[in-house]
Amino acid sequence: MKSAPEHLHARLHSLIGQSVATIDTPALVVDLDAMERNLQKMADYAKAHGVKLRPHAKMHKSAALSLRQMQAGAVGMCVQKTSEAEALAAAGVHNLYISNEVIAPPKLQRVAALARNLQARGGRLAIAVDSLLGIEHLAQAMDSGANLIDVFVELDVGQKRCGVAEPADVLPLAQAIASHPSLRLAGLQAYNGRAQHLRTVAERRAALDEVIARVQEARRIVEAAGLSLPLVTGAGSGTFGLEASSGVFGELQAGSYLFMDADYARNEADPAQPAFEHALFVKSQVMSVSPGHVVVDAGHKSHAIESGLPRVHGEALEATGCSDEHTTLRATSSAPLPTLGATLWLIPGHCDPTVNLHDWIVGVRGGLQAGSVTELIRVDARGCLD
Amino acid sequence: MKSAPEHLHARLHSLIGQSVATIDTPALVVDLDAMERNLQKMADYAKAHGVKLRPHAKMHKSAALSLRQMQAGAVGMCVQKTSEAEALAAAGVHNLYISNEVIAPPKLQRVAALARNLQARGGRLAIAVDSLLGIEHLAQAMDSGANLIDVFVELDVGQKRCGVAEPADVLPLAQAIASHPSLRLAGLQAYNGRAQHLRTVAERRAALDEVIARVQEARRIVEAAGLSLPLVTGAGSGTFGLEASSGVFGELQAGSYLFMDADYARNEADPAQPAFEHALFVKSQVMSVSPGHVVVDAGHKSHAIESGLPRVHGEALEATGCSDEHTTLRATSSAPLPTLGATLWLIPGHCDPTVNLHDWIVGVRGGLQAGSVTELIRVDARGCLD
Repeated sequence: MKSAPEHLHARLHSLIGQSVATIDTPALVVDLDAMERNLQKMADYAKAHGVKLRPHAKMHKSAALSLRQMQAGAVGMCVQKTSEAEALAAAGVHNLYISNEVIAPPKLQRVAALARNLQARGGRLAIAVDSLLGIEHLAQAMDSGANLIDVFVELDVGQKRCGVAEPADVLPLAQAIASHPSLRLAGLQAYNGRAQHLRTVAERRAALDEVIARVQEARRIVEAAGLSLPLVTGAGSGTFGLEASSGVFGELQAGSYLFMDADYARNEADPAQPAFEHALFVKSQVMSVSPGHVVVDAGHKSHAIESGLPRVHGEALEATGCSDEHTTLRATSSAPLPTLGATLWLIPGHCDPTVNLHDWIVGVRGGLQAGSVTELIRVDARGCLD
Repeated sequence: MKSAPEHLHARLHSLIGQSVATIDTPALVVDLDAMERNLQKMADYAKAHGVKLRPHAKMHKSAALSLRQMQAGAVGMCVQKTSEAEALAAAGVHNLYISNEVIAPPKLQRVAALARNLQARGGRLAIAVDSLLGIEHLAQAMDSGANLIDVFVELDVGQKRCGVAEPADVLPLAQAIASHPSLRLAGLQAYNGRAQHLRTVAERRAALDEVIARVQEARRIVEAAGLSLPLVTGAGSGTFGLEASSGVFGELQAGSYLFMDADYARNEADPAQPAFEHALFVKSQVMSVSPGHVVVDAGHKSHAIESGLPRVHGEALEATGCSDEHTTLRATSSAPLPTLGATLWLIPGHCDPTVNLHDWIVGVRGGLQAGSVTELIRVDARGCLD
C-alpha cells in the first residue's frame, strides 16, 4: 500500500513538463529562475567580500539545493539538528555544521558516527557548544578519534537564547575543547537571530555593533590566554552585509536569501546588501467567496504564520485570518474580489517552517503565469527534529 | 537508502517496551491512559445526549485512533482534505466526511473515485458545499453514479470563513443538490470555529445562540420549500455541550478533546461539558542554561505556536519565546531553574498543527515519569494538504 507522501509524489511527478496551471493546490512552488538569481547574487557577494558562505539548510532541508549552493562556492552547509545532518549526509552533502548544542549522550553517539562517516568521505562535521558538560559529553562520544570534529563555542550576542552569556565565559570552554585530541577548536559561533528582523537599517546596525564588540572581546580574552578562535561564524539574511564588512566574521550562515519570505520583505532595505527576490510561493485556489472576503484552500498547515500572515503575490488582497486549512483574504482596493476557483500565489510569512510542512517543492521555470514544471525538489530533512 | 522518516521509525520502534526515559528529544508523546479516558468520556456523553459523534481526524490524522473512536461509538470521521480522506480510507476508515469545500475538477475526480471505493466497502463519503458552481463540479465528477455521496450545505454561523452568508442562501443550494441523482442532500454544516475559543462560558453561549438561530432559520426556509435537511453537523471541543443540548444539532465534530491543548485549557470550564485531560506532550530537553532562562530543544517545528506558546507540564516555568528549534523558558517562582539535560514536557498550544509536524506519536502507559513505551501511532495523513 502506498503511503500518502508516495501518492503525492506520483501526482506531482506526473506534472513534470506540464504548465504551471496543472499544479493542484495547495502546493509549495519555487520559481527556479528567481532562486538561481538569488543563489548567484549571494555567492558573488561572499566571494567579493572575502568571506566564506555556509548557508543554513534548516531553511530548505534539501540536499539537491545544498549541492547547488556548494557548487556555486559555499564551503558547506549549516543545520540545526543531528537528524538533519544525517539526512543531508545520506544524500551527498559531506561538509556540515550543526550550529546548535547537542547534550544527550545517545544523540552524541550519532554525531560521532556521522563525524567518522564524513571524514571517511573526505568531508567534515562541526558542532556548537555552550557548556563544559556539553564538551565532556561530546568528547566521551568521540572516544579515541583524533581531530574528528570542529567545535565552535557559542557566545550569546544579543539573542538571549543559547550561547555563553559573557565574552569571558568563552575561554574556559575553548580551553576544555583544546584539551581533547578528538575535538578541534574551530572558532566562535555568534548569531543574533533577533537582529535579522529589526525593521530599520539603523536598528540592525546598532544591534550588530554590539555583536561585533562582544566577538572582539571574546577573541581578545582567548588570544591573551594563548589560544585562538580561527573562524567567527554567524549572520543571517537580514544583516549579513554588516557581518561581512565587520573584519571579524569569516563565515556567513544566511539561508533565507535563497527563497525570501514576507517577513524579511518587511525589513527596510540596506543598500549595503544585495536585494533578493521572492522565489517561494504556496499556490492556492479560491474555494469560497462571500460578501467582502474570499477563502483560499491553504492554511497554516501549508504556510507558517508564526512570523506573520502571508502576502498575496501581485494582487490587491490582504490576509485577514488563517486557520489550519484556510486563509481569509479581503481586497485592499476597490477592485473586485477574485472569483471562485481563481489561483492565488501566497508568499509565506516565514520560509523555514513553511518548507518543513512539505515533502516536495515543485520547481518551475518561465514564471508563475506562463511557466512549466521542470523538477521536484525533495525536502530530505522534512520533520527531522531530533 | 533509508529516508529520514524510516530512520526515525527504526529509532522509535526500538523503544517499545522501554521506559519513558529512553525517548530521545524532541518527540511527540501521547499518554494513552489519559487519552482513553478522554475518548470514553466523549463517547459516553454523545450516547447519553442522543447525538452522533463524528470526531475530526484533522486533529490526529491517524487511522488507528480513528478506528478506536469508531469502536467506542463514533459513526465515522471528519477530515478537511481529499488527501486526508484518501490516506485514512487506505488504512481502513470507511466512513468519512470531508467537512470542507472542494472546487477543482481534478480533485473532485479523486473525491468521486473515493466515494465509489468506500461504497464498495460498505462505507460512505460525504462532503460540504457552499456554491452552485461547487455543486455542478461535484455532480459532473460523480458522473452517472446514483446516490454516491452525502452532501452538506455549509452555512456561515459566525466564523466569517466558508459557508453561504445567509440562511436563505441555503435553499438554492439544497435544491441544486436534490436535482442530481448522484448527490444525496444530507443536511447542514454549521461550524463556528471562533466560538470554540471564546474564553468565558457566557461568550460561548451567546455565540451559540446565534449559531442555533441561524440553523433554525435555514431549516425553516428549506422545509417550507418542501425539502429537508436531515442532519445538522458541527461543534468543536469548546462548545459541543451547547450544540448537543440545542435540539437542532444531530452530530458533533469535536476533535481536540482526545488530546487537549494549552489553548483549550485557557477556556473557562463549562459545567455542562465533561472536562478532558492533557494527553499530548512534546518531550524536550534543556540544552542550554543561562542566567535567568533555559532553552529546550523543541521549537515551533516541533509544536505549533500560532494559538499561543506551550505550557510546561508540572513545572513553575513559562515559555517566553520560541524559534524554529528552541523554546526559551523562565521561572515563575523562586525555585531554581532546571539543570542542563533535564527533561521537560511541553503541552502544545494547538494539537492539530502540532501533530501534523510529526510522522509518529509515541504512545506511553503508566504515566510520564514511571511509564513505558507501548506503541507507535502513525500519523497517516501527515502533510496531506491537497
